[in-house]
Amino acid sequence: MQPLLEGKTIALLFFNPSLRTRTSFEIGAFHLGAHAVVLEPGKSSWEMAFTEGEAMTGDAEEHVREAARVLSRYCDLIAVRCFPKFQDWGVDLEDRVLQGFARHATVPVINMETIVHPCQELAHALALQDHMSELAGKKYVLTWTYHPKPLNTAVANSSLLIATKLGMDVTLLCPDERYILDPVFMSDAQKNAHTSGGTITVSHDIEHAYKDADVVYAKSWGSLAMYGDWESERAVRDQYKHFIVDEQKMSLTNDAVFSHCLPARRNVKATDAVMDSPKSLIIEEAENRLHVQKALMAALCGAHTPATAI
Amino acid sequence: MQPLLEGKTIALLFFNPSLRTRTSFEIGAFHLGAHAVVLEPGKSSWEMAFTEGEAMTGDAEEHVREAARVLSRYCDLIAVRCFPKFQDWGVDLEDRVLQGFARHATVPVINMETIVHPCQELAHALALQDHMSELAGKKYVLTWTYHPKPLNTAVANSSLLIATKLGMDVTLLCPDERYILDPVFMSDAQKNAHTSGGTITVSHDIEHAYKDADVVYAKSWGSLAMYGDWESERAVRDQYKHFIVDEQKMSLTNDAVFSHCLPARRNVKATDAVMDSPKSLIIEEAENRLHVQKALMAALCGAHTPATAI
Amino acid sequence: MQPLLEGKTIALLFFNPSLRTRTSFEIGAFHLGAHAVVLEPGKSSWEMAFTEGEAMTGDAEEHVREAARVLSRYCDLIAVRCFPKFQDWGVDLEDRVLQGFARHATVPVINMETIVHPCQELAHALALQDHMSELAGKKYVLTWTYHPKPLNTAVANSSLLIATKLGMDVTLLCPDERYILDPVFMSDAQKNAHTSGGTITVSHDIEHAYKDADVVYAKSWGSLAMYGDWESERAVRDQYKHFIVDEQKMSLTNDAVFSHCLPARRNVKATDAVMDSPKSLIIEEAENRLHVQKALMAALCGAHTPATAI
Repeated sequence: MQPLLEGKTIALLFFNPSLRTRTSFEIGAFHLGAHAVVLEPGKSSWEMAFTEGEAMTGDAEEHVREAARVLSRYCDLIAVRCFPKFQDWGVDLEDRVLQGFARHATVPVINMETIVHPCQELAHALALQDHMSELAGKKYVLTWTYHPKPLNTAVANSSLLIATKLGMDVTLLCPDERYILDPVFMSDAQKNAHTSGGTITVSHDIEHAYKDADVVYAKSWGSLAMYGDWESERAVRDQYKHFIVDEQKMSLTNDAVFSHCLPARRNVKATDAVMDSPKSLIIEEAENRLHVQKALMAALCGAHTPATAI
Repeated sequence: MQPLLEGKTIALLFFNPSLRTRTSFEIGAFHLGAHAVVLEPGKSSWEMAFTEGEAMTGDAEEHVREAARVLSRYCDLIAVRCFPKFQDWGVDLEDRVLQGFARHATVPVINMETIVHPCQELAHALALQDHMSELAGKKYVLTWTYHPKPLNTAVANSSLLIATKLGMDVTLLCPDERYILDPVFMSDAQKNAHTSGGTITVSHDIEHAYKDADVVYAKSWGSLAMYGDWESERAVRDQYKHFIVDEQKMSLTNDAVFSHCLPARRNVKATDAVMDSPKSLIIEEAENRLHVQKALMAALCGAHTPATAI
Repeated sequence: MQPLLEGKTIALLFFNPSLRTRTSFEIGAFHLGAHAVVLEPGKSSWEMAFTEGEAMTGDAEEHVREAARVLSRYCDLIAVRCFPKFQDWGVDLEDRVLQGFARHATVPVINMETIVHPCQELAHALALQDHMSELAGKKYVLTWTYHPKPLNTAVANSSLLIATKLGMDVTLLCPDERYILDPVFMSDAQKNAHTSGGTITVSHDIEHAYKDADVVYAKSWGSLAMYGDWESERAVRDQYKHFIVDEQKMSLTNDAVFSHCLPARRNVKATDAVMDSPKSLIIEEAENRLHVQKALMAALCGAHTPATAI
């Protein structure tokens, strides 16, 4: 309990459900002497518009221009969770909700998962650092897994970005080229690798990818190539249920640690044996959300330590 | 941060959505050392009955007699938002939900918008006072605007009440006599004007109303004359889209300040140019909700300043 | 305000609505210096699975194994409300949601009503103790009442358990044998009575049951004998509307106190005259929720009083 944010406030806007993010931000704020207000636009608060210049004749009662500016008057920080709409990737890639808040707010805005998930990245990196003496040069596998619905690519994008930034040798394992991530993130990961001395490779070969891996990070996501056409994509993804992380695959690794952001469907994305193994970092990574977010909030708006206290 | 309400608690009951009201009350309470609990009857908490003496055989599991008395045992203040049902104005005018809480609670009850919106009134008045050296005798126009749905008259009622109380020369501009507000509020405004030295006039002439105005306050509301018959009313209101507040109309004024309670549909109720003009007080008025509500809560249940501190 | 839980946190998981439980836990935590986070799985947070070993191919995104363990990392206490599903009593009797949290959490778990309602029990017992010099040997009647829907047996089960534990002579009054409570609870109540010197009797005779009663506690519940077959049960329960608690029945008692957990439908379960009589403890029992839950939270995770302070 360090009151680094004594009397400060943060608005948490959830356009989508949350367990960990909500709880860890709300408790993190409390630990620091601050208070978090939880808002759910379209449910407990008004539906919002994000297009500039339009006549607001639809369902939205409120524009982000007002919401962001008003919340900036009430609060010291704004945090936003807004998943893609899963209809048009070109639109979702613009990240309009977050960008709208970032443009109009006059206080710092935190991404609680839109098309990337930076808080999860930080928690993931901390979990890896706590378990491995050196990350640079280690083999890191981000494996696509099956899930009955097309999910957000945010955590996968963030995984590539942070693992390449940490200088790891990163393999993106996915069923076929239709599951490769957006070129924006592939290219940023490439640049990160170039700077850090890491590498990034795409593989569709399960055995080859798991071979000698030090880290296996699992996530499911919808194909960008079939984005919005989910009936067709289902037929494709249904062939790939064998991408589940299991003990047989893990036995090919260099005694790798396993992780997955939560929530995760057991025995669909990873087997019970893998989820519950001593090498599983899932609970620790989730716990780290609390710690990294407290650091993030304090860095963004904490009072400076008085000189006399140093 | 003045802990005027240290350890006190307030229950915020929302029968309708909210962004500003919820955030500003919750943060205001926190600033004062208190804690706000947010309840949503019919959603996260039980549906309530408000009629005395009835056999509760409908959907409601709980009567306001119990809800108000129990919350009074837990909390030091109760605040209620409950919009009209838009079926029978005679019923809505009775303000049963708020009156039920006021009757049965043993702690002060704050109106967070029912058929009037006193917290918005206070925030509006503060914004005007901050921008104009003298309010008495200034020309104040409350203009009806188009909106695709029939809205609550609460803010319009409150606007007339506060502007007349402040001694302003008030014009209620609306499309035709069917959009005049309820006689209860028209008559109270008349009495206020009589006391304060102000005036109140109804006009259906846009140019005449805007001419030399010092304040333009915009709001949309449903016609009381066609209350509950919204299909018929839609045909009427659809003819009045030109009541939108725009630069051309504002150019007729005495360089008037503009305001609107939020949320407000851009380019429907007012154009972007008006909403974003330097004369627009919308964000400031919204910010003032925080300040006036803190004062209100402290006045209603704050600890008295100890004599020795005076 | 005693900061017995300074800086501590509690997660309140509501799978069902709440007014009193939510407000009293949230305010109780605040009074003790702690903070409560409210979560609504399936609404604001992810839907959960509770079966061990299954492939999670249904609607649930998250397993209680993860939810309980992660919340244990964030919080010092977890509290759960989860009503029965009302389809198969054999399944509901397993209390899977609460048991899942109890099994996987590493912090104490509080029952906020599942198939028993221990916090209500404690509040009820405190109300009785405050009003009667001696409870042992007093006649305590738990009467079934009509309600248009089949309700949870939790409060009825808890009522029998606590009243027998307190050494009272307990009568379970219900319309016929199909409304007797589950043998698990009847037998535990029998054991309690044996230990405490109390008794427990089942009666279907209204007059005989009310005769000379010192306490009348009312509650409605669905028949376990017709569990899940609610259309048939409706026809049965509709014959029993006369079980309503009214002044005529109360006049048979030994000037008994009356109580009912809230919410309660007025003039369905008890008449206005009974609910509002000076002998009615309903508001006081509801208030007691706050006090007993503060004691419970402090007992489960409060800091020990430092020796020097004793």
